[in-house]
Amino acid sequence: MTNKKLWGGRFQTPTSQEVDQFGASIYFDQLMADEDITCSLAHLHMLAKTNIIDQADADQIEAGLKQIQKDVAAGNVKFSYENEDIHMNIEKLLTDQIGPVAGKLHTARSRNDQVAVDFHLYVKRRLPQVIDLLKQLMATLVELADQNVETIMPGYTHLQHAQPISYGHYLMAYYQMFKRDCERFEFNLHHTDMSPLGAAALAGTTFPIDREMTAKEIGFSQVYANSLDAVSDRDFALEFLSNASILMMHFSRFCEEISMWASYEFNYIEISDAYTTGSSIMPQKKNPDMAELIRGKVGRVYGHLTGLLATMKSLPLAYNKDLQEDKEGVFDGFKTIIPSIKIFMHMLQGISVNKDKMYQATTHDFSNATELADYLAAKGMPFRQAHSIVGQMVYDCIVKHVNLQDLPIETMQEYSDLIEPDVYNDLKPEVAVQRRTSLGGTGFESVKHQIEQAKADLA
Amino acid sequence: MTNKKLWGGRFQTPTSQEVDQFGASIYFDQLMADEDITCSLAHLHMLAKTNIIDQADADQIEAGLKQIQKDVAAGNVKFSYENEDIHMNIEKLLTDQIGPVAGKLHTARSRNDQVAVDFHLYVKRRLPQVIDLLKQLMATLVELADQNVETIMPGYTHLQHAQPISYGHYLMAYYQMFKRDCERFEFNLHHTDMSPLGAAALAGTTFPIDREMTAKEIGFSQVYANSLDAVSDRDFALEFLSNASILMMHFSRFCEEISMWASYEFNYIEISDAYTTGSSIMPQKKNPDMAELIRGKVGRVYGHLTGLLATMKSLPLAYNKDLQEDKEGVFDGFKTIIPSIKIFMHMLQGISVNKDKMYQATTHDFSNATELADYLAAKGMPFRQAHSIVGQMVYDCIVKHVNLQDLPIETMQEYSDLIEPDVYNDLKPEVAVQRRTSLGGTGFESVKHQIEQAKADLA
Amino acid sequence: MTNKKLWGGRFQTPTSQEVDQFGASIYFDQLMADEDITCSLAHLHMLAKTNIIDQADADQIEAGLKQIQKDVAAGNVKFSYENEDIHMNIEKLLTDQIGPVAGKLHTARSRNDQVAVDFHLYVKRRLPQVIDLLKQLMATLVELADQNVETIMPGYTHLQHAQPISYGHYLMAYYQMFKRDCERFEFNLHHTDMSPLGAAALAGTTFPIDREMTAKEIGFSQVYANSLDAVSDRDFALEFLSNASILMMHFSRFCEEISMWASYEFNYIEISDAYTTGSSIMPQKKNPDMAELIRGKVGRVYGHLTGLLATMKSLPLAYNKDLQEDKEGVFDGFKTIIPSIKIFMHMLQGISVNKDKMYQATTHDFSNATELADYLAAKGMPFRQAHSIVGQMVYDCIVKHVNLQDLPIETMQEYSDLIEPDVYNDLKPEVAVQRRTSLGGTGFESVKHQIEQAKADLA
Amino acid sequence: MTNKKLWGGRFQTPTSQEVDQFGASIYFDQLMADEDITCSLAHLHMLAKTNIIDQADADQIEAGLKQIQKDVAAGNVKFSYENEDIHMNIEKLLTDQIGPVAGKLHTARSRNDQVAVDFHLYVKRRLPQVIDLLKQLMATLVELADQNVETIMPGYTHLQHAQPISYGHYLMAYYQMFKRDCERFEFNLHHTDMSPLGAAALAGTTFPIDREMTAKEIGFSQVYANSLDAVSDRDFALEFLSNASILMMHFSRFCEEISMWASYEFNYIEISDAYTTGSSIMPQKKNPDMAELIRGKVGRVYGHLTGLLATMKSLPLAYNKDLQEDKEGVFDGFKTIIPSIKIFMHMLQGISVNKDKMYQATTHDFSNATELADYLAAKGMPFRQAHSIVGQMVYDCIVKHVNLQDLPIETMQEYSDLIEPDVYNDLKPEVAVQRRTSLGGTGFESVKHQIEQAKADLA
Repeated sequence: MTNKKLWGGRFQTPTSQEVDQFGASIYFDQLMADEDITCSLAHLHMLAKTNIIDQADADQIEAGLKQIQKDVAAGNVKFSYENEDIHMNIEKLLTDQIGPVAGKLHTARSRNDQVAVDFHLYVKRRLPQVIDLLKQLMATLVELADQNVETIMPGYTHLQHAQPISYGHYLMAYYQMFKRDCERFEFNLHHTDMSPLGAAALAGTTFPIDREMTAKEIGFSQVYANSLDAVSDRDFALEFLSNASILMMHFSRFCEEISMWASYEFNYIEISDAYTTGSSIMPQKKNPDMAELIRGKVGRVYGHLTGLLATMKSLPLAYNKDLQEDKEGVFDGFKTIIPSIKIFMHMLQGISVNKDKMYQATTHDFSNATELADYLAAKGMPFRQAHSIVGQMVYDCIVKHVNLQDLPIETMQEYSDLIEPDVYNDLKPEVAVQRRTSLGGTGFESVKHQIEQAKADLA
Repeated sequence: MTNKKLWGGRFQTPTSQEVDQFGASIYFDQLMADEDITCSLAHLHMLAKTNIIDQADADQIEAGLKQIQKDVAAGNVKFSYENEDIHMNIEKLLTDQIGPVAGKLHTARSRNDQVAVDFHLYVKRRLPQVIDLLKQLMATLVELADQNVETIMPGYTHLQHAQPISYGHYLMAYYQMFKRDCERFEFNLHHTDMSPLGAAALAGTTFPIDREMTAKEIGFSQVYANSLDAVSDRDFALEFLSNASILMMHFSRFCEEISMWASYEFNYIEISDAYTTGSSIMPQKKNPDMAELIRGKVGRVYGHLTGLLATMKSLPLAYNKDLQEDKEGVFDGFKTIIPSIKIFMHMLQGISVNKDKMYQATTHDFSNATELADYLAAKGMPFRQAHSIVGQMVYDCIVKHVNLQDLPIETMQEYSDLIEPDVYNDLKPEVAVQRRTSLGGTGFESVKHQIEQAKADLA
Repeated sequence: MTNKKLWGGRFQTPTSQEVDQFGASIYFDQLMADEDITCSLAHLHMLAKTNIIDQADADQIEAGLKQIQKDVAAGNVKFSYENEDIHMNIEKLLTDQIGPVAGKLHTARSRNDQVAVDFHLYVKRRLPQVIDLLKQLMATLVELADQNVETIMPGYTHLQHAQPISYGHYLMAYYQMFKRDCERFEFNLHHTDMSPLGAAALAGTTFPIDREMTAKEIGFSQVYANSLDAVSDRDFALEFLSNASILMMHFSRFCEEISMWASYEFNYIEISDAYTTGSSIMPQKKNPDMAELIRGKVGRVYGHLTGLLATMKSLPLAYNKDLQEDKEGVFDGFKTIIPSIKIFMHMLQGISVNKDKMYQATTHDFSNATELADYLAAKGMPFRQAHSIVGQMVYDCIVKHVNLQDLPIETMQEYSDLIEPDVYNDLKPEVAVQRRTSLGGTGFESVKHQIEQAKADLA
Repeated sequence: MTNKKLWGGRFQTPTSQEVDQFGASIYFDQLMADEDITCSLAHLHMLAKTNIIDQADADQIEAGLKQIQKDVAAGNVKFSYENEDIHMNIEKLLTDQIGPVAGKLHTARSRNDQVAVDFHLYVKRRLPQVIDLLKQLMATLVELADQNVETIMPGYTHLQHAQPISYGHYLMAYYQMFKRDCERFEFNLHHTDMSPLGAAALAGTTFPIDREMTAKEIGFSQVYANSLDAVSDRDFALEFLSNASILMMHFSRFCEEISMWASYEFNYIEISDAYTTGSSIMPQKKNPDMAELIRGKVGRVYGHLTGLLATMKSLPLAYNKDLQEDKEGVFDGFKTIIPSIKIFMHMLQGISVNKDKMYQATTHDFSNATELADYLAAKGMPFRQAHSIVGQMVYDCIVKHVNLQDLPIETMQEYSDLIEPDVYNDLKPEVAVQRRTSLGGTGFESVKHQIEQAKADLA
């Protein structure tokens, strides 16, 4: 029995069934069916234009491909692992439909450049969706920040109250993170928006192809300059996974805070019923599941990055079968981050903030201690000395169960005679926030400035 | 509109559809359908035995569960993401079938211990399969080694010829690696073979349950000693992914060598047609695809390990939704390593070794230089000096394009008068191999000893 | 100019200085100086015993080695990158001291088995320290648990109050985790406690060495069965890094909770001054730095694991220079986990628990809702129905700003006439905890049982 | 005893010594001593300019800082872990020198923005070095490619001979990879070249600081727009580690090939003595150590990336002690990639290519089979049919131990009468290469075009 694979000429026995099943990629690369046909059509047009194949043959092939494209879109195509991958499956369908002339489509290309161009196109089509969603999320943050410029909350370092801040300011910090994420995905596009088609197996081809024509038709703005590189480069996929990892890391931080703030102890926010779930056993539970799930999904994206880096390690040029492992992580990466952005955004829109609870916290937590130290420093005391004196005052207050602002002026003056009655104003949380007018600070004017800048950026 | 989820009592609005879809795990946890029913049956029997529920109710529930079990096995069940996960899907099916009495099954348990026990059982059932396959692979290696005790090949360090070795010895090195893999999976079983059932949500239950009874019925030899730990522990999954990573690392090394040895330049082995594939464009190609694919799949397993480690980081006790991310990596881990072991074993069995080519290589590569240094050291010259003299001889031979064994005795004696005509025997590759009789060395007797030991271990 | 390296015989030009610096491992492998000398002494005794070298030469070498050992211990030795690594540095020192006879020490071994045996010994010596410290930590947890069996705190799932639990029970959950960590490090010892010495470069040796003698003298209970495996196996290092990763993951969870509990909002614990730090700018700050730092260090250990897995991927047998990268991660792993365990333990001992605050929380959080559902289920209502009714009650209470236990009996009975006045007892947190007497549950008796079991295990 | 730390005002007992040692970062952050002083000077000038502190005080502080800067540069400073980190060490030195006025330097800043600005500057200073070295490496590749446009070698896929290619073409593939690496590090600079100074602890400051002035003096082109983001962002570090990982992955591929090509079996290249090393036991060995070591170091860089991603996961805003773990991986990343680039470049320059051996390989390997298939396709046969016929021819040739070009024309015509005597020209490797003139192909003209383009880019 001979090997009936399309590449089986020199083989005397067929591959074993377990090899066919294990080696097949059709289980996941069928997601690129439309990309495959789109790129084949561009290749076909070029083959005809350059007279590598007859126009009549080309017309027949085009009709066949378009029919398959429709069938695929309608969900009427059944793929089979015996045909290995999406490329061979579609070629098989084409051959069944129009006969051996189908074989002419594969002139002057190889699966190596074919899979590479399909994969590039897949990523190239989806990066703008990610960028667009991130911009929607950024706009949401700006909108919420705008409503909360004067909402006072505790600012944390080490999860300890540090200084009171504006909730709008807090939201704008995440705006900045997602802005950098956007910029990374935009940069990612540069190394994705390159056509490897025409690199053939690894060395280019002797046929008089026109790579710029196919690139243009598919929508790529550049072509790879070197055919070996074209078929073995997966940098664009690694860049995507790295960018997706950083994005998910940002979400993990935000979700961590949402999870804490929704706890009984913090009770700073309430998430809408539509974005929480209950327990199968505890009737009172209202769990911030979406925040936790998005946070948890950081792991899978990190894993995909680690995985592809490991797979690429030490691979000689050019194509090796190991490279088949490049896609699932990227596909799952998009499948993870796209709904994560959407759901996170919708969850955020449905959060109600317990402003009173937040404000109250800033009046009982000594987070105005820096104000007092700055007050002294502004009056000429070296900051280190001011810090030390206020530290002692805080300790004494804790022992006495009072707040700094509750100390009578006389008591304060025992610590330093630089303290005068105007100090009480400085100790108010809203004043502490308002006065932080340094560029990028939490002062109301500064936050408004950030918001205006962001609105201009997004416009 | 109220929330119709089984846990929806306190919710006023339903979860959004995107939340239902994103949060659902039924897409992948349906793989545990049989485990879920098996564990539910054990829980049911215990509830009846301890009189927590009536025997009549229990009988009704049992009949329903068994019907669902049959339907699932026959592929007649359609799961739905609206019912979130495998547990709720099955409870829903049960309720549809037998009405509200189905609700009694969930007495004294929670999804938290339910998912944990299902997952433990899933892993516990598959670890022995992995161990069994590894033992088959080990037996294959021993058999091949037995046939190749006296097959001489170049031994490498730094991918440079170092000293000639026995091919049987080489195969037995991998035997040792897979033996350790086996031992790791066996150890893994200890932390998997523990029942979390009865931990309920996190704190145990007020019902008079019998955890040892359910554990025994399901087949666990231990129960978790602490309920919080029971529902939040995923160590067994991490151990599995770590063990699977090390196993795949071993495969990556073996596959790397197979890939090189099958190259035009090495040409030391030929892989059977059944375990190679061709090229869509280059008619002569015969690619060691399976070796490459298994090597490439090391990445995904490393990725799953990294991913779960990241997901677990900083999670407070006890259950958090993040933990839903624990399964896909493990499921895919088994799906990767089980066929990898099988296919690798079959591929190995179909490899033919070009013994002449291997042997010839050992006669032209100066890999007998150590023999000469050892010859001098054995005659009393400090090893460092012997090494230095032989290094000079090698260099001179390279310049003259001759091998060490081609030098006349007079020439040799110019380097050291310790050299006598018996040196030529020592310089033969087969003698060099044969004489390495140190314990664990490549000497034929030593290799035979390893093989006998291995046969005894496997028996 | 010729190459003056000890291996330089066949080289005509020396290595470039940048190669010497980049390739040298003395920067970090000097940590194994004592291991190197210990193993050399055992090798030496064996060489003499088997008459491979003269006793007189051996005596001279022994005296030299012991002198160097003393000098190293006293910090009087200056290592140099020109001598590459710890092995060559010590051989050079020996040669400087006793002349060319020093060269005899390297008879019948290679740096490949030498570095492997040193590294095994390094790990073998430190694993018991880790195990011992973990046992101290476990004893600390048991002691603290013993003091807190009846300390009531909120039990969490999804960081939401779920059911009240015993703080002692909570501590015992971590006891179980660290117990598994111990077991993993003990298993790790099996694959570490094997001597590779005598594998020589890769193939064993022609000298009549006695590997079991050297193994025994150094303290190994086994020898590697295959010389190729002996020099290229790093499984024991990967096992260590995997075990250390899981341990650090456990710490990251515990530290996360400590960090939250020490927050203004939770305020459940206070960490002693000795294990907290202040801020350079905010005088009131008291930061749980150690909990954060240990949590943060999880990353470096994960990284070492990922790194070594990547380095090992696709390495052909036997030794390759890549393997030099195996040590730093392991060294840093020990350097990270040993103080982490100590400091965590001491920090834990210095924590004071705000029992009142914890208890109060459990009376206002509806965490007794499960009790009510169980109450109804125990009276024969299907659990699902009970869950639904109690969910409605909780919702109504939230709207009315009351707790479940505050509802008059008449109001309760409007939801179900199964409710009787004895329900109020069930709704008390301490009763809820106490009644969870299921095996491994949070009930006081159950926790005491866990503690007794743990004490017996540790004794 | 009170706490004498600069932040110790509110503390009653000192931190334990083990906490001081474990928490200190001076061991590694002393590498940023110059960055710290540079940024302090800029901060100081701004404080004086904005009248926040007196010019006289500023002058005193400036003199002190400059003296410390000199002492550090001269290696005359001993840092101490009691002073925790580089910032506190320098402040302590300053205080020792000029007294309490030193404390004024810390006005309007915090260690949180101080460490962030130092770290940004550290990376910002080194990225251009990396870029510059990569450009040197690229120029080296272009130069070598220029000399080897017509050097014929086997092109590989699946490590099997695929089609003959130009060695110059091969080198230019790596040129493209390093070009993308450069672009990534250049993009990295955008998110690094931002000053966080003035964010203070987290919220900005009430002092009238001028952040743009300090940014400008230090050399930053932008300032962070949000203070919370400024102190908690480590994206620039993650970008660096991701970029470094991809770079090292490229090296691992190149080094893998160099290692194989230097093997006895390939024997396509010889590395100079200066970039190889010998064996302590095998006198003939000449090991491509540098290629292996660079390949092996891919692991540590991957590990640093994984590690920092894990550390950042779930961290709440703003600064947490976990962030102290951000630096060592980045420092080691630079320490790894900078010499890797240099040494790789020098090694490459010293490689001699065995052109004859490479060429001969392309004449015995059926790598001209595609030529024959293309020949038939060009004559109108569908490619799939041509592929199948040539596959059969290859198989028959293997059985007969002849090459395709050795078949008489009559034999060839038995397979297809489209074959005519002009086929023999097409079957020559140099013709096969030369004719691949498609854009980016391996044809000589195409390679020359790539080289010209590269020269223009580099100019």
